[in-house]
Amino acid sequence: MDRQWRYPPPRFSVHPGPRIEGETRMPSLDISRRVLLVGLAWNAAAGLSARLAPALAQAVAGDPLPSWNDGPPKRAIIEFVRITTDRSSPRFVPPEARIATFDQDGTLWVEHPMYTQVVYCFERVPSVVAQRPQLKNVEPFKTVLSGNREAMARLSMPDLEKVLAATLTGMPVETFEAEAKAWIASARHPRWNRPYVELVYQPMREVLRHLRDNGYKTYIVTGGGQDFVRAYAQDVYGIPPEQVVGTAGGVRYGYGKDGKPFLTKEPKLLLNDNNAGKPEGIHLLIGRQPTAAFGNSTGDRQMLEYAQAGDGARLSMLVLHDDPAREYAYGPARGLPDTRVGAFTAALDDEARSKGWAVISMKRDWKRVFAFE
Amino acid sequence: MDRQWRYPPPRFSVHPGPRIEGETRMPSLDISRRVLLVGLAWNAAAGLSARLAPALAQAVAGDPLPSWNDGPPKRAIIEFVRITTDRSSPRFVPPEARIATFDQDGTLWVEHPMYTQVVYCFERVPSVVAQRPQLKNVEPFKTVLSGNREAMARLSMPDLEKVLAATLTGMPVETFEAEAKAWIASARHPRWNRPYVELVYQPMREVLRHLRDNGYKTYIVTGGGQDFVRAYAQDVYGIPPEQVVGTAGGVRYGYGKDGKPFLTKEPKLLLNDNNAGKPEGIHLLIGRQPTAAFGNSTGDRQMLEYAQAGDGARLSMLVLHDDPAREYAYGPARGLPDTRVGAFTAALDDEARSKGWAVISMKRDWKRVFAFE
Repeated sequence: MDRQWRYPPPRFSVHPGPRIEGETRMPSLDISRRVLLVGLAWNAAAGLSARLAPALAQAVAGDPLPSWNDGPPKRAIIEFVRITTDRSSPRFVPPEARIATFDQDGTLWVEHPMYTQVVYCFERVPSVVAQRPQLKNVEPFKTVLSGNREAMARLSMPDLEKVLAATLTGMPVETFEAEAKAWIASARHPRWNRPYVELVYQPMREVLRHLRDNGYKTYIVTGGGQDFVRAYAQDVYGIPPEQVVGTAGGVRYGYGKDGKPFLTKEPKLLLNDNNAGKPEGIHLLIGRQPTAAFGNSTGDRQMLEYAQAGDGARLSMLVLHDDPAREYAYGPARGLPDTRVGAFTAALDDEARSKGWAVISMKRDWKRVFAFE
Repeated sequence: MDRQWRYPPPRFSVHPGPRIEGETRMPSLDISRRVLLVGLAWNAAAGLSARLAPALAQAVAGDPLPSWNDGPPKRAIIEFVRITTDRSSPRFVPPEARIATFDQDGTLWVEHPMYTQVVYCFERVPSVVAQRPQLKNVEPFKTVLSGNREAMARLSMPDLEKVLAATLTGMPVETFEAEAKAWIASARHPRWNRPYVELVYQPMREVLRHLRDNGYKTYIVTGGGQDFVRAYAQDVYGIPPEQVVGTAGGVRYGYGKDGKPFLTKEPKLLLNDNNAGKPEGIHLLIGRQPTAAFGNSTGDRQMLEYAQAGDGARLSMLVLHDDPAREYAYGPARGLPDTRVGAFTAALDDEARSKGWAVISMKRDWKRVFAFE
């Protein structure tokens, strides 16, 4: 899995040297990169070259987005990074203001046929019922225990919330984290029969890395549970817990029998990190507007608007799922099917067009979708 | 003001070279520092030496805490940093887990005779009343308008909360930030007749820098308003907004007449970042236990307990205000006066003793208190 390469260009960044051939494809070679290369050389001498060779090779090769086909979205990303990190650019963004936010489900990894976290919650129901047998014949637990996937998919939102509350709260934070980590390491997606963590979009992984290589702090801003995504975000995306903003419940501080303090997850919603909740959550956890934002559905609309509303260069992008052969196809914009999970509506498509948000066509713009292809 | 020098040692940190004389005073010279020094040399060659000379001088001089007298607290900090950053140490902490949290009022800067933010709120009352004249003859606004400082200091907590709600909410986030920045740039402390931002404790500034120089992410975890402290934390402490955890209210997403989105501060409390609220806020915003925590009052007790409860090397420290000549003296532990702002109780003192938290005596341990001395 990717490790995070976060190298905020230091404050003493200098103007890049004379322009070199092919510079538009090679991101600005500022002092941080130079220091990095010096460091790499130093480490190579120390016998660590094997471990670092891939990163070095990528830096030298010059195409930071090899899984992307040439086209407007790829060019928009590369140009955005160039103009915001080149000190001579009028749209230069100082390192400390380089914030990029990414929706997770449908933007960084597969969200069909069901959000991964919902699968997790459904699969946890039997152990919850084992501890609280009175739930066995009560809806929605009865339906979930039946194993009827179609009936489960039809559960109402209030019913789904009951399942989430029962399976995501009431235990110490550490217990939850350990269980989520164990599950994510073993659970597999029904279509590919691979761990969910292998269903990260390789092109988006490259975007994360390219931004981080250029001093951006990358954040996940997800409607999913903050604690759930934090359990694997470092390993899967190279994003540490403090850079995951998600739907969050309260925790309660208390002491165990041994006097040791711990936090218990409470069924109290603090932040519903969807729609308007995304900019609200960004304010709470980050405290400034993102310079770049990536999403794929109506739930990301406000985050993209909020990112774009800041001064200077901004990048707002949407992933369009129009590739049923390699992944899924859903809209309902552009004649694509209307599905329950993820909604790219005609109104969102119109807003993207009118505001200049680039729409990434999975089919057209991605050379490959997954790392295992 | 200090700029933030955040150099997370890269993941390819290597075992430091052979031990050198005086190493106990010179923090572990790991790869990040080496890369930094190479970078400094490179920049010196580029003609930037003047700007960087102070940082270089400090790194070379070897005492990262020059404003501290030699004694157990100073030694504890230096030893903690050494054992957690030296790869050969059994208590080595990987860079991504190096989190240090600091209370602000009374720990990083002066909190007497009144929390700076409360002064700000009182001073904002006239402009709030100008916009809402019906408040003029209503308590607690009437008392605040009277200018009677003693009466203001006697306001009950519910009354104080009314003042805070009226002065800290109801406006766009950007308006609040601009007003707070303008105020903090001009307001002066009555005793020293200096800007509040000059009343940062120089020894603690050195601790922040020493930790950051060694790959720690430094956070403020304050009972004060998150948005208020964020307005100046970068300039004053070198701490970016996303590393300030504080008492936080909700914000509401909306659109201006021009269609541009903005956030409005709401009088809805999301996080009361005091006492048990500190570890709860740390979980919400950071998502992991701090490795080191610094406080000064009973409101910091749970944060220090929580930091210490993690595995491996941990550092929990308390500042004791026992220096009426250079700053203030208040307890009520150790026979010091019992004051309304900040409480270092006998119970806290006992807990510190039993758990091995170092207590920093301002009088004994700090060679100087403020940078202007």
